[in-house]
Amino acid sequence: MSNYAIILAGGVGSRFWPLSRNTEPKQFLSVSSSKPMIAETIERISSYINKENIFIATNKKHKNKIQSCLKKFKIPQNNYLFEPTGRNTFAPIAVLTKTISANDPNAVIAVLPCDHVIKKNIVFLKFLKRAMDSAQAGKIITFGITPKRPETGYGYIKVTRPPDHNRATGLCKVERFIEKPNLETAKKYLLDKRFFWNSGIFIFTAKSFLLEIQKLYPGLYNKLIHEKNFSRLWLSLPATSIDYAIMEKTKNITLLPADYGWLDLGSWQAIEEVHSKDKNGNIFKGHSIDLNSSNSIVWGGKKLIATIGLKNIIIVDTEDALLVCSKNNTQDVKRIVELLKKGKFKAKL
Amino acid sequence: MSNYAIILAGGVGSRFWPLSRNTEPKQFLSVSSSKPMIAETIERISSYINKENIFIATNKKHKNKIQSCLKKFKIPQNNYLFEPTGRNTFAPIAVLTKTISANDPNAVIAVLPCDHVIKKNIVFLKFLKRAMDSAQAGKIITFGITPKRPETGYGYIKVTRPPDHNRATGLCKVERFIEKPNLETAKKYLLDKRFFWNSGIFIFTAKSFLLEIQKLYPGLYNKLIHEKNFSRLWLSLPATSIDYAIMEKTKNITLLPADYGWLDLGSWQAIEEVHSKDKNGNIFKGHSIDLNSSNSIVWGGKKLIATIGLKNIIIVDTEDALLVCSKNNTQDVKRIVELLKKGKFKAKL
Repeated sequence: MSNYAIILAGGVGSRFWPLSRNTEPKQFLSVSSSKPMIAETIERISSYINKENIFIATNKKHKNKIQSCLKKFKIPQNNYLFEPTGRNTFAPIAVLTKTISANDPNAVIAVLPCDHVIKKNIVFLKFLKRAMDSAQAGKIITFGITPKRPETGYGYIKVTRPPDHNRATGLCKVERFIEKPNLETAKKYLLDKRFFWNSGIFIFTAKSFLLEIQKLYPGLYNKLIHEKNFSRLWLSLPATSIDYAIMEKTKNITLLPADYGWLDLGSWQAIEEVHSKDKNGNIFKGHSIDLNSSNSIVWGGKKLIATIGLKNIIIVDTEDALLVCSKNNTQDVKRIVELLKKGKFKAKL
Repeated sequence: MSNYAIILAGGVGSRFWPLSRNTEPKQFLSVSSSKPMIAETIERISSYINKENIFIATNKKHKNKIQSCLKKFKIPQNNYLFEPTGRNTFAPIAVLTKTISANDPNAVIAVLPCDHVIKKNIVFLKFLKRAMDSAQAGKIITFGITPKRPETGYGYIKVTRPPDHNRATGLCKVERFIEKPNLETAKKYLLDKRFFWNSGIFIFTAKSFLLEIQKLYPGLYNKLIHEKNFSRLWLSLPATSIDYAIMEKTKNITLLPADYGWLDLGSWQAIEEVHSKDKNGNIFKGHSIDLNSSNSIVWGGKKLIATIGLKNIIIVDTEDALLVCSKNNTQDVKRIVELLKKGKFKAKL
């Protein structure tokens, strides 16, 4: 049995506008370190999974971008799936699992998003190894992150009973997947040890995953296995998430509590979790000068940014667009991107 | 007797950084209307004072700039005084008064700053005419603005008794000039009808002004009258203000209360007094999009500025520098300019 990775690099990341764009989504940004997040993701697993076994799905319009980002990893050209159109996560995972399975029917696969921050790489790898070993028994395994706060921006997974730390495998039976809750509900989840943040990471054997598709969607399964024309296959696959299509429906899923410093950078404010602040709680990037600001983020480049007396303000300056946003309103950045999409305001999307 | 104007256009205006620069001081900016303030100043008086009688003092480094700004007014080339070095207001006024007086010993001169906003041009001209007529009797006249608020950013002039509106001339005897007061003192001034804002406008006959110099500084007077070499003369003149050198010392000064919608745009916040706000109290200039901001000023150009949830924030975006400042801290913009002067941060001065 060999270990494989499917890296999902098709995201858009509108919440990091104006740094993230259609042409420059979150996975290509260096927000958590000096490296693009996609490069960090590959580097993290490269000591454990052979480069020949790393498969990457991204939109075809990012072909040049991703290949230049990942040049040094020497991933085989055939391991890239360039999606003709954005089709959420189920379609690329299904296609790549079939590809991997065709060459290695006993493959064990880890599905990894690349727009999350993982702070403790060694701990992460320990969990990944354990999960890939356990997955050989046929279960789909997902990492569950112990909630640190009543977060309303993440999905949750409920297990049937609190984890028993005395059990060798550490695996918990999944009861259900839960959409982003409201604050009141999130506060309850925080106190109840049966709730975990959904990490978006799944580990399974190619066999068991394909079996799930066959059980849940027999027509789709036939198409997936027998359609030789990629364009026709792609169009016939539903644009839905792996969570919705498979994970929320299968009984064959189990959760591994795995705390490795996971962060989904869901907004500019989340930058605070990966960058150190000055003594006034500010984060400055680029050419800047400040007088008496506090708890603010200034994200610029070569152009001088002078800030005076700001409190809880986020500034992101790029060549053709500037964002100045109260920290309480970072979720509204998406709305700016939506307005831009409507073509009302000129700036690159 | 003919009427003359001396326009003081030598200011730096660091408080409007980053819009104002050494190369682009306040008088060349179009902050109050679509025209540069210097052009507004000339236009305002052009129906009353012949273009041959308008004299302009500015720093020699602004020679091209000012002549292109004022092209349409066809002011004679010899009417410009291009100062080799900045020397405050006394030196240019003394030199230009001597020049005017040499050709027209009976000249009546109005000294006009050009970095102030005057909202009521017709009312202003009415006061100017009255003052120029009254000045023929030999008194130096200054306009006093009735304080509208306890302003700590302006100088004040105290007269000996509250204005008597029944007197035909309206002139008040000046008791003393007062430096910018603290808030407590400014509040007292606001309630006492003997205090006026110092408008920086002075009207006098060339004769009486030169006489004042002769009385107060006989040595300097000799130099002014007899030194034929301009460079030597300029270097021998003190770098001091007309207020300090003459107006605060002479007994021959009288104040005309003159309310013509005067504003000294002393900071970005003052922009609010000349531009209308939207229903949330915001002012937007340039390409911008906003969600839920209030009482903020966004001063940009072609680049998109997206603002979200701001309160009392001022944003000024230029090509090589961006200012984001709390409204409570606009006086600190000067400090940024000082730091730039020290060469610590790269941006045009």
